[in-house]
Amino acid sequence: MDRLETFPNPAVGRQYRIKHILHEFTSVCPLTGLPDFATVTIDYVPDAICLELKALKYYFLEFRNMGIFYEAVTNKILDDLVERCNPIEMTITTDWGVRGGMSSVITAQYRKQ
Amino acid sequence: MDRLETFPNPAVGRQYRIKHILHEFTSVCPLTGLPDFATVTIDYVPDAICLELKALKYYFLEFRNMGIFYEAVTNKILDDLVERCNPIEMTITTDWGVRGGMSSVITAQYRKQ
Amino acid sequence: MDRLETFPNPAVGRQYRIKHILHEFTSVCPLTGLPDFATVTIDYVPDAICLELKALKYYFLEFRNMGIFYEAVTNKILDDLVERCNPIEMTITTDWGVRGGMSSVITAQYRKQ
Amino acid sequence: MDRLETFPNPAVGRQYRIKHILHEFTSVCPLTGLPDFATVTIDYVPDAICLELKALKYYFLEFRNMGIFYEAVTNKILDDLVERCNPIEMTITTDWGVRGGMSSVITAQYRKQ
Amino acid sequence: MDRLETFPNPAVGRQYRIKHILHEFTSVCPLTGLPDFATVTIDYVPDAICLELKALKYYFLEFRNMGIFYEAVTNKILDDLVERCNPIEMTITTDWGVRGGMSSVITAQYRKQ
Amino acid sequence: MDRLETFPNPAVGRQYRIKHILHEFTSVCPLTGLPDFATVTIDYVPDAICLELKALKYYFLEFRNMGIFYEAVTNKILDDLVERCNPIEMTITTDWGVRGGMSSVITAQYRKQ
Amino acid sequence: MDRLETFPNPAVGRQYRIKHILHEFTSVCPLTGLPDFATVTIDYVPDAICLELKALKYYFLEFRNMGIFYEAVTNKILDDLVERCNPIEMTITTDWGVRGGMSSVITAQYRKQ
Amino acid sequence: MDRLETFPNPAVGRQYRIKHILHEFTSVCPLTGLPDFATVTIDYVPDAICLELKALKYYFLEFRNMGIFYEAVTNKILDDLVERCNPIEMTITTDWGVRGGMSSVITAQYRKQ
Amino acid sequence: MDRLETFPNPAVGRQYRIKHILHEFTSVCPLTGLPDFATVTIDYVPDAICLELKALKYYFLEFRNMGIFYEAVTNKILDDLVERCNPIEMTITTDWGVRGGMSSVITAQYRKQ
Amino acid sequence: MDRLETFPNPAVGRQYRIKHILHEFTSVCPLTGLPDFATVTIDYVPDAICLELKALKYYFLEFRNMGIFYEAVTNKILDDLVERCNPIEMTITTDWGVRGGMSSVITAQYRKQ
Repeated sequence: MDRLETFPNPAVGRQYRIKHILHEFTSVCPLTGLPDFATVTIDYVPDAICLELKALKYYFLEFRNMGIFYEAVTNKILDDLVERCNPIEMTITTDWGVRGGMSSVITAQYRKQ
Repeated sequence: MDRLETFPNPAVGRQYRIKHILHEFTSVCPLTGLPDFATVTIDYVPDAICLELKALKYYFLEFRNMGIFYEAVTNKILDDLVERCNPIEMTITTDWGVRGGMSSVITAQYRKQ
Repeated sequence: MDRLETFPNPAVGRQYRIKHILHEFTSVCPLTGLPDFATVTIDYVPDAICLELKALKYYFLEFRNMGIFYEAVTNKILDDLVERCNPIEMTITTDWGVRGGMSSVITAQYRKQ
Repeated sequence: MDRLETFPNPAVGRQYRIKHILHEFTSVCPLTGLPDFATVTIDYVPDAICLELKALKYYFLEFRNMGIFYEAVTNKILDDLVERCNPIEMTITTDWGVRGGMSSVITAQYRKQ
Repeated sequence: MDRLETFPNPAVGRQYRIKHILHEFTSVCPLTGLPDFATVTIDYVPDAICLELKALKYYFLEFRNMGIFYEAVTNKILDDLVERCNPIEMTITTDWGVRGGMSSVITAQYRKQ
Repeated sequence: MDRLETFPNPAVGRQYRIKHILHEFTSVCPLTGLPDFATVTIDYVPDAICLELKALKYYFLEFRNMGIFYEAVTNKILDDLVERCNPIEMTITTDWGVRGGMSSVITAQYRKQ
Repeated sequence: MDRLETFPNPAVGRQYRIKHILHEFTSVCPLTGLPDFATVTIDYVPDAICLELKALKYYFLEFRNMGIFYEAVTNKILDDLVERCNPIEMTITTDWGVRGGMSSVITAQYRKQ
Repeated sequence: MDRLETFPNPAVGRQYRIKHILHEFTSVCPLTGLPDFATVTIDYVPDAICLELKALKYYFLEFRNMGIFYEAVTNKILDDLVERCNPIEMTITTDWGVRGGMSSVITAQYRKQ
Repeated sequence: MDRLETFPNPAVGRQYRIKHILHEFTSVCPLTGLPDFATVTIDYVPDAICLELKALKYYFLEFRNMGIFYEAVTNKILDDLVERCNPIEMTITTDWGVRGGMSSVITAQYRKQ
Repeated sequence: MDRLETFPNPAVGRQYRIKHILHEFTSVCPLTGLPDFATVTIDYVPDAICLELKALKYYFLEFRNMGIFYEAVTNKILDDLVERCNPIEMTITTDWGVRGGMSSVITAQYRKQ
């Protein structure tokens, strides 16, 4: 999470949406040690700062050899990114490849109060 | 239903959605004895516990040679899963292959009160 | 309409949706005598009884050589099925093939009061 | 507009939707004299009368050599059809082919008060 | 922005939507100097005036060799077009090609008060 | 087959291909009496005469209430059309809707010797 | 294989192709005991006899609880069907669902000498 | 055909292919007077000269109000373009919209001897 | 490559094709250290032995943290698999995700002499 | 063209194919000064050397503000790349966006003698 960088929102005061879709996320199943693959979508309304894209890509690399469950990784990404850029709202969606004839989609959401 | 297993929700307190899509469900028509094929979608908001995926796959295998109607199997899956993981809300959708030029989709929903 | 058969709703008390999509409906244009082709979708919330699928298929065969307009056939199917299974709500959609560079979709809805 | 014909609504009193999609509309750009091509969608809730399809096709032919802008033709079709069939509500959508790397969609709506 | 031209709304008083989709937008990344590619969508409800399409195409050419971030260019287009045609409401969406396995979509909205 | 009409080939001497695709063919299963639906493709190189389209449409209507198997109807169409227009070569393809989880495609070909 | 039935080829002497696509094949993995799912395509040129469709469907049901590998089942279907209908040529293709991120397609062919 | 213009082939001596696809062709049915719509594809290997695109677009405009059959217009375009640019080979394909449930594709080819 | 396992071809003497498509291959760029993602297709005609699927999956895991170019990895997979199962022929195709606006496909083939 | 870089073929002696697809090519029309957009595909069999991808991307940037026709740019890319990497064979395909309702595809090929 230390890798995450930000830059000042160029349109503070206007509530607009930024969506980044990472088509190539991979982590490891903590039970089997086998890799999992997902598409990860970040959809947020920035407040004072925005997430820098290149650093975001490096942040996701940290999961490449990490053993972690679908539900946990989705909530961890939301927690990390909210802490780093303090958005007005943010939704994380992870869409996982087929395992045993079954695919999965996890969606977690944060709204500033 | 005894096969179903669970694990503790890693983000209790946050209302987030988990969707599992089983692309390879099959049961048997109780009238003709011929197999039926469907895609089954489970979409739920967990409370204290989550459904474990591997056990879920084995749970669905129990229907492979069971004679049961579309409407009944959809409601039975909802009843079984709600009883087992006690979610905040859950929707089951079954999408059935063509029979006599006709395909069918059944959707049943539970919300904790 | 006499052909329509029903069976008891296996989950009375739960409001769930049943959708049947007939991909191969055909009737006849009353002006030209030429056949029309449509996909017909029945989407309903059952009350005490459900529509039986095989009888439903035979019901639709009655339109094969009947001369009837798009708007009339859509409303007639809705009237017939509502009368037969007395649902909580029902929507009929007919999606017609291209005629003169133009395709048509008719949608009629019933809600029990 | 004189070409437009109508017939009595076969289900007066029920608010149902009729959608006609003309895949082959063409008019002329008043500035360049070059042809424009669009898909035109009529989506309406009839009151006492419905639009007859064959006459509708001839009505659209009147635009084939008419010079008229995207925004004007969309509003003219809405005005003509509303005047002719007096619907409860009607939406006209025109979806135009690419010009200079840009495509356009215009949507105009009428609701009876 | 001086290039933008307008014409009188042919249906003042009716709230209808105009959508223009530019499939071939390109600007330059201010950090790397490499080109970025996007599809830009303008969706607005005109008030007294409409945006002229040919001038709009030339307006977008001004970004071809301009170094500017995704978030900034989206908000700048919204600011420029709102100032020029004073619409009742307008939404700008920019959908960017893949960089580092990640694609992005930015959406900014204006509503007249 | 008496309904089939022809017109003189406007480019005799050049071997070019004509393909007609009927998206709305229907006949009846001789065993069950239930309707079958297919897309029928005629692909031929004309010799002295071409098949007239409107008459072709009426020819296909003759199958609407005829009980005939997939394999037989494909070969009958080929025989009828070859006899009527005497082409240099012709291929008939019939692509049938799903029955019992199975769809079928039959292809028969004629080449003048 | 005893279930397979045939009928006389209605166009003996013409080499034409018949293709049947079973969208709902299932067998069992002999190692894990878990079900496998495939689409099975039969593509053949009949000689004196054709495969009857309804019996073919029942033939495929025999694999539902049989433990057998992808490569073996494909070759077994080819052997069984060739023995039963003695075609001029036949190709069997089995297209299997994803397992461990990997899907498989097996194709075996027979030509009469 | 007088409108067609050409320019010198920039790579004389290399046999390469040029394909232009006109998505918006329209002519008139000589029997009914109603418009027909097609996608027209020109695929050729140039010899000494190439077809100029803007003039080609104006050439196609001449068919807008011309009554002509599918087979005739395809062969006429081939004759006109071959005469004008004298290619090594050329194929014209016209793909026509649905009429009476039937769509058509005509393909004519020229090869220099 | 030691992980690769095989089993006896169940249909020795018949030349049939086996295709495995791994949708989730990943390796590392040797220049940047960043991960690459590809779909890898193995298409082969077995001789005496076949590749076992589960071991194949583990073989591909060895590339997860290996720095290797597109061209080299494609040829290495071909060399490894040919050495291990000695097929009659084999084709390896690697289809790589977008980098700098560019995607790549590499195809290498082996035929036994 | 000076920007193009190469590296030694890692599998000299095996004839295998390398395909690079640039989704974001842009140049300028020499007549109107307006930008053109294309997808460019390079498909080649390397001899002793391969094209380096990052340098290839910079090579394509040189066309961004260059006025050049479709046919000329396709042949120029082929000439430049053949000269630089001396392949066994190479095909360049350029697929251009819609202009005046027309899109274009140019394909040029080189084979070493």
